[in-house]
Amino acid sequence: MSAKKYVYDFEEGNAKMKFILGGKGSNLAEMTKLGFPVPPGYTISTEACNIYSKTGKLPEGLEKEAKEHQNKLEKKIKKQLGDTNDPLLLSVRSGAAFSMPGMMDTVLNLGLNDVTIEGLIRQTENDRFAYDAYRRFLMMFSDIVLKVDKNKFERELREMKKKRGVKQDTELTAEDLKVLVNIYKEIVKEETGEEFPKDPEDQLKKAISAVFESWNNSRAKTYRKEYKISDDLGTAVNIQAMVFGNKGNDSATGVAFTRDPGTGENKIFGEYLTNAQGEDVVAGVRTPKTLVELKEEMPGVYNELIEAMKKLEKHYRDMQDVEFTIEQGKLYMLQTRTGKRTAAAALKIAVDMVKEGLITEEIAIKRIDPSQLDQLLHPRIDPKAELDVLATGLPASPGAASGEVVFDADTAEEEGKAGKKVILVRWETTPDDIHGVIAAQGVLTVHGGMTSHAAVVARGMGKPCVAGCEALKLDMEKQLFEVNGTTIKAGDIISIDGSLGRVILGEAPLIPPSVSIDFQTILKWADKYRKLGVRANADTPEDAKKAREFGAEGIGLCRTEHMFFGDERLPLVQQMILSETNEEREKVLEKLLPHQRRDFEGIFEAMSGLPVTIRLLDPPLHEFLPNFTDLRVELTEMKLKGANKDEIMAKERLLHKVRAETETNPMLGLRGCRLGIIYPGIYRMQVKAIMEAASNVKKKGFKPVVEIMIPLVSHLNELVIMRKEVEKTVESVLADCGTNISYKVGTMIELPRAALTADEIAEFADFFSFGTNDLTQTTFGFSRDDAEAKFLAKYLEDKVLPVNPFEVLDQKGVGKLIKIACKLARKTKSDIKLGICGEHGGEPSSIDFCHKNGFTYVSCSPFRVPLARLAAAQAAIDVEGDTTK
Amino acid sequence: MSAKKYVYDFEEGNAKMKFILGGKGSNLAEMTKLGFPVPPGYTISTEACNIYSKTGKLPEGLEKEAKEHQNKLEKKIKKQLGDTNDPLLLSVRSGAAFSMPGMMDTVLNLGLNDVTIEGLIRQTENDRFAYDAYRRFLMMFSDIVLKVDKNKFERELREMKKKRGVKQDTELTAEDLKVLVNIYKEIVKEETGEEFPKDPEDQLKKAISAVFESWNNSRAKTYRKEYKISDDLGTAVNIQAMVFGNKGNDSATGVAFTRDPGTGENKIFGEYLTNAQGEDVVAGVRTPKTLVELKEEMPGVYNELIEAMKKLEKHYRDMQDVEFTIEQGKLYMLQTRTGKRTAAAALKIAVDMVKEGLITEEIAIKRIDPSQLDQLLHPRIDPKAELDVLATGLPASPGAASGEVVFDADTAEEEGKAGKKVILVRWETTPDDIHGVIAAQGVLTVHGGMTSHAAVVARGMGKPCVAGCEALKLDMEKQLFEVNGTTIKAGDIISIDGSLGRVILGEAPLIPPSVSIDFQTILKWADKYRKLGVRANADTPEDAKKAREFGAEGIGLCRTEHMFFGDERLPLVQQMILSETNEEREKVLEKLLPHQRRDFEGIFEAMSGLPVTIRLLDPPLHEFLPNFTDLRVELTEMKLKGANKDEIMAKERLLHKVRAETETNPMLGLRGCRLGIIYPGIYRMQVKAIMEAASNVKKKGFKPVVEIMIPLVSHLNELVIMRKEVEKTVESVLADCGTNISYKVGTMIELPRAALTADEIAEFADFFSFGTNDLTQTTFGFSRDDAEAKFLAKYLEDKVLPVNPFEVLDQKGVGKLIKIACKLARKTKSDIKLGICGEHGGEPSSIDFCHKNGFTYVSCSPFRVPLARLAAAQAAIDVEGDTTK
Repeated sequence: MSAKKYVYDFEEGNAKMKFILGGKGSNLAEMTKLGFPVPPGYTISTEACNIYSKTGKLPEGLEKEAKEHQNKLEKKIKKQLGDTNDPLLLSVRSGAAFSMPGMMDTVLNLGLNDVTIEGLIRQTENDRFAYDAYRRFLMMFSDIVLKVDKNKFERELREMKKKRGVKQDTELTAEDLKVLVNIYKEIVKEETGEEFPKDPEDQLKKAISAVFESWNNSRAKTYRKEYKISDDLGTAVNIQAMVFGNKGNDSATGVAFTRDPGTGENKIFGEYLTNAQGEDVVAGVRTPKTLVELKEEMPGVYNELIEAMKKLEKHYRDMQDVEFTIEQGKLYMLQTRTGKRTAAAALKIAVDMVKEGLITEEIAIKRIDPSQLDQLLHPRIDPKAELDVLATGLPASPGAASGEVVFDADTAEEEGKAGKKVILVRWETTPDDIHGVIAAQGVLTVHGGMTSHAAVVARGMGKPCVAGCEALKLDMEKQLFEVNGTTIKAGDIISIDGSLGRVILGEAPLIPPSVSIDFQTILKWADKYRKLGVRANADTPEDAKKAREFGAEGIGLCRTEHMFFGDERLPLVQQMILSETNEEREKVLEKLLPHQRRDFEGIFEAMSGLPVTIRLLDPPLHEFLPNFTDLRVELTEMKLKGANKDEIMAKERLLHKVRAETETNPMLGLRGCRLGIIYPGIYRMQVKAIMEAASNVKKKGFKPVVEIMIPLVSHLNELVIMRKEVEKTVESVLADCGTNISYKVGTMIELPRAALTADEIAEFADFFSFGTNDLTQTTFGFSRDDAEAKFLAKYLEDKVLPVNPFEVLDQKGVGKLIKIACKLARKTKSDIKLGICGEHGGEPSSIDFCHKNGFTYVSCSPFRVPLARLAAAQAAIDVEGDTTK
Repeated sequence: MSAKKYVYDFEEGNAKMKFILGGKGSNLAEMTKLGFPVPPGYTISTEACNIYSKTGKLPEGLEKEAKEHQNKLEKKIKKQLGDTNDPLLLSVRSGAAFSMPGMMDTVLNLGLNDVTIEGLIRQTENDRFAYDAYRRFLMMFSDIVLKVDKNKFERELREMKKKRGVKQDTELTAEDLKVLVNIYKEIVKEETGEEFPKDPEDQLKKAISAVFESWNNSRAKTYRKEYKISDDLGTAVNIQAMVFGNKGNDSATGVAFTRDPGTGENKIFGEYLTNAQGEDVVAGVRTPKTLVELKEEMPGVYNELIEAMKKLEKHYRDMQDVEFTIEQGKLYMLQTRTGKRTAAAALKIAVDMVKEGLITEEIAIKRIDPSQLDQLLHPRIDPKAELDVLATGLPASPGAASGEVVFDADTAEEEGKAGKKVILVRWETTPDDIHGVIAAQGVLTVHGGMTSHAAVVARGMGKPCVAGCEALKLDMEKQLFEVNGTTIKAGDIISIDGSLGRVILGEAPLIPPSVSIDFQTILKWADKYRKLGVRANADTPEDAKKAREFGAEGIGLCRTEHMFFGDERLPLVQQMILSETNEEREKVLEKLLPHQRRDFEGIFEAMSGLPVTIRLLDPPLHEFLPNFTDLRVELTEMKLKGANKDEIMAKERLLHKVRAETETNPMLGLRGCRLGIIYPGIYRMQVKAIMEAASNVKKKGFKPVVEIMIPLVSHLNELVIMRKEVEKTVESVLADCGTNISYKVGTMIELPRAALTADEIAEFADFFSFGTNDLTQTTFGFSRDDAEAKFLAKYLEDKVLPVNPFEVLDQKGVGKLIKIACKLARKTKSDIKLGICGEHGGEPSSIDFCHKNGFTYVSCSPFRVPLARLAAAQAAIDVEGDTTK
């Protein structure tokens, strides 16, 4: 006897055993326990599957153990597998811990052969039914176990209906089906070179192995990847006595939800087919009827079903999705599981169930998938619309938009000002394109990943973006792109779907975003439970206002570099960079100051009373300069075309300067506080602008809460020097303004060295903000600008990496550094304020990590603030006994 | 009374107290203790200096304490400071823990004023001597304490000599000097607005403060930076009764070494001046005489001096550098210290002293400064030559060379083949220039730092390189550069000094490298004591041979990318990269294989019996492709000049491909094992070439020891996949060849994430090699290609960073990661082989770190192998009681 138990009768299990019995098996056991009409059966555990996956063989002792349970089943139902007089037929179905609908395999009517069918006919006196079951069995078994192409069988079925001049399967006679059965057996013989297996025990064993194998079929793998389900959970196999919905017009099969999965309305929602078996409903061979009709057709059964569903929902305390079969007027429950639902429905059901006293607020909060909420906060393409999808890129910023194609930022701005809707299409965007992004409805890029410039900026602005759409063959000179045979010219209309990465020809119908009352209710509850603060990354007064509307409790990251763009400013910034002397530079900085001050005033007003963390200039300066290659080309053209000598000389000087600023790896170059140390005037001007702005708005009655953040510190001394500089400037400004404004000076922890020496750095920082984008870049050695398109996509596809570390915080590597930093920092300053302002600040599992490590707040795009509030609450709530999740 | 003791009589101290008393003070105390004729005195400690540096004031209680010691001194010598009849004169001299010759300040003859001089004259009956002392005192005190420009005094001295028609100071009469004294006092009054301080106690107090202040003068700071002496050691002040070498022709002053500091010969070496004071010898006012003449002039004193020096050397067990004064026939010892010496002398002295039984082998090993040895292993510029230095850049690769200037690699190669000596001058070099670097005598670049491509490659080849010489105004089109007013055209001859960073006009005279017998002896001893293995980074059979000659015990890093260049190969590599299909790529790889195999064969033969760690292809592929900007310019030209359409199309296709390979931050892009995963054919070809080569040389009787290294692993899975690939290929090759060769597969730890997850990674690695260049880049977020020129130079200048982390391993940050990695790796595999192959593998303090952390070996450039052997021995030796170091 095997030491390990692999097989469980339905009577032995319960809903809590889903990791052993799978979702289907554990719920069948639970329903059995609760006395629902479940046909008897047993489940082979996921552990057996895992052994099968590893060894390619069923575990030792399993067959014997299964046989014992099979014997019990036969005793219970008083039928035997292979009995020539009254054969037991079985349903063999897969079922993993997490629902993977339609992704795995099922064999029904197992146990039939040319002998047992005679017994079945004798017992049921229904030869049509028997042959219908036989032809179904032959096809499913051949498809799933023998790997014979299903289409070969379906073609024959269609042929037969055509020959008989009928439309529905149900219109075929027993004789027709009998002919089909013979044809099917011929197909199997032809395709496999062997006879269809006759021995029911052999059939069963093969079916079990096939279900285990289906765990690793490509559909299942793709699904798991998409839904981040671990590969080593395995599937269970449920072996159950068949009940028949195809025994005539008093028989039926169907599926139903206890509430409307689209809207969440508290109303049974379901469909069924008379005289059919389960797969017919899914396959859509006939149009199913709604449950309203069942009420009329079989009112007794209908009431029984409604009663059962109510009981099930109450028991599971969540919306249920059930499968049922009616065999000659008798109801059987074949499955129950937590029903999938839209984001809107999820919110409504959660709120309603709290009101109904079915669940607590905590459970309601835990029930909502935060990443699903994203779709509610952006316009989206009507899911019912028929679309001409040209290509699919990366879903870089959610939402959808339509507009005329433009190929450069200036045109985008012009057309935008003229009131046109445009989609900006670029190889990739740079900060130079920012005015174009502002003017456009959405952005489409050929290169760049989920965290490319275009993606980050678009997400920050809440605009849709499809990035890295490499299928586009862009020709900038001709102002067009080709994609899979279609040519799109400037001015042509396309739509982009940033939630799914789709590029669509023409104008797609959009659905506006809806922030429902239910959503508000859930967020209000979430705020009660969460411990983490939620701030927003916002660089403009508009973003700040939006963030506050969405419930942000301050700004965690105000990037100042975006303020360096714009018609009036960029020329000044360029002049500043190209200054030959310090005095020249200081003069230009003086001219930039009023612009910066005005930006900060707007932001402080919008965030009055809440902290605003302003990061001093961070990016390498050459981002503000013209492109080196373009300049070289221009110069070449000027020379060949015999341009004016002075103009050539001026261009050459510019080229020289730009070359001097150009870096091989700008991400690791002269940026962040390195700029502050090399060109101290820039930070001095910024700090002056910040404090003058704070002073001005304070005089107007607002409450500015100033936090100045030094970026890219790698060594303590950088912060020491910068902090001293900042304090000197602040004090001089406050003395001039005659106001008193308290402020904090902190730093980004975004380089491994800063994390590793956080104890030293903490001494000079009032707060830390983990810049997990950059920290991920340097910890992995991945360039955000390059990785996604060049290798990361392939890495994710091949599972070299389990998830994209720019989306989901890598807890093993980057997270370890963060933990080290937190520990070291607290050793120096036990109450140091710790925040996160990378993309991860809006990602649920990363928010959970921040909660567990005692962070003060997370900061994310304004549009992700609601999501972060919810995720923070979920991290704080430890719900026991909610077995359905 | 002050709780803290700041003042020590010479009788109270000893040689071990150098951190409190400074080198000079502790040795004066030691000599006093040993009974040498030292004029009495006392020392104010370095702690007092540190307090002075911090507070700007002398510590509380110090004056009182000093006064007590002053009283004791006066009692001892039976003279009093300020005594109008027989005044005590003092010497006030600085003295830090580490010798900083000439860098700090001294005041002699302190105590003189218009009254005390009369007493001095009465006592000595020598008014010329007295006024000589007075004028010296006035000048030194004014210079050092009152900050009056010394030149003003020297000018008057010159004027006086001119007026009197004499050449030597000694020819001036008492009357002349008296006039000078009055002029000097006038100068002081004019410059400071005040009378020269008359009160000797006031003079003393001011002089002490001035010495403390001199600790932070710019000369001293620069010196400390150069020699990596900590700023917070402080200087002591030595106050000592004056003895006079300027009391007539029976008086003298001089300096002497116990052995020749240039050659190390065991022979007294010294110089002196009759009727002079100490500063005259140093200032070179008269040409000093050698000690041979002293033997004739004052044989008794000479013998006494020789005796004293022998005794001192024996006592200190190291070569001594002494200062002495003879006052009217009596010898006084004023200083002894460990003598500075050349690298050659250091080796000879160390070896000789072991033979003489003066020191042990361990001490001999510890005495050699490994970084000094570098100069012996390369040709260098004759230090006696007069040079026209055009500019100074970074000393990127030691050694020196002369040659005609060429501005591109192709010309360098051509001219080199024609037998000309050339210096390759570039903005910066790329792997494309490698054939030029090979052909050139040396490399000079405008951009790039100590670890730029040019520097690394040149160091690897043992060629001199001056990098980052930003003063050069390079005009590639005109084929010239301008530097500080001089124009150098192609074909002009320059010399470069890679040890000091100098660029020199014309051909500088060179001295060839000398590996002396003494050097060999020291290295033989070092090998006995060291625990660390020493390997070399070598990519060619020639380098491998050289490395073995220098004592390398294997190759720690064989970069395979250099093998992808060269006339025959680069076109194939480009074809491989530009392949549209996998089959095309595989075909080209097949053609590259024989080249790679040949390289490996040569290396395995040269290293027979020793391990060769081969790193699979690491750099981003676009390094092998033409430059994107250049292509754009060419295309523009072709179009404007109306080139053939097909040619334009071909160029456009190439441009498109190159653009696709171009990355924003190539250092963090598609390189290392990422290449291996995306284009598995490349690594497969390399592994095949390695194993075929190993098999071939084995058949010839050599013993290949193969270690295959996977670069840039950030996640366990990358190594798992690559290891599996490697093993598959190896097994298939070995089966084909019918040989059996054992091999190891390991990985570079060069990304923070690899270090942080070393426990996981170790499971699949036979060895780790820490790539500290890359690890430093990502830990700091510094791009090697950009940092040095853009901000690192300034960081070092301003002491934002204490040292360049690309030269000296940053133990606080990068070192912490390495420690974490070692600990985690050993948890998985207690005996895992750990090596280092970054630039740090040849740097003494980093080698010490590797020793302390139990590394198996360090690997460095072939030319640094001897240095590494020595440093490894030094790390292993813990010498007690060698107080002189």
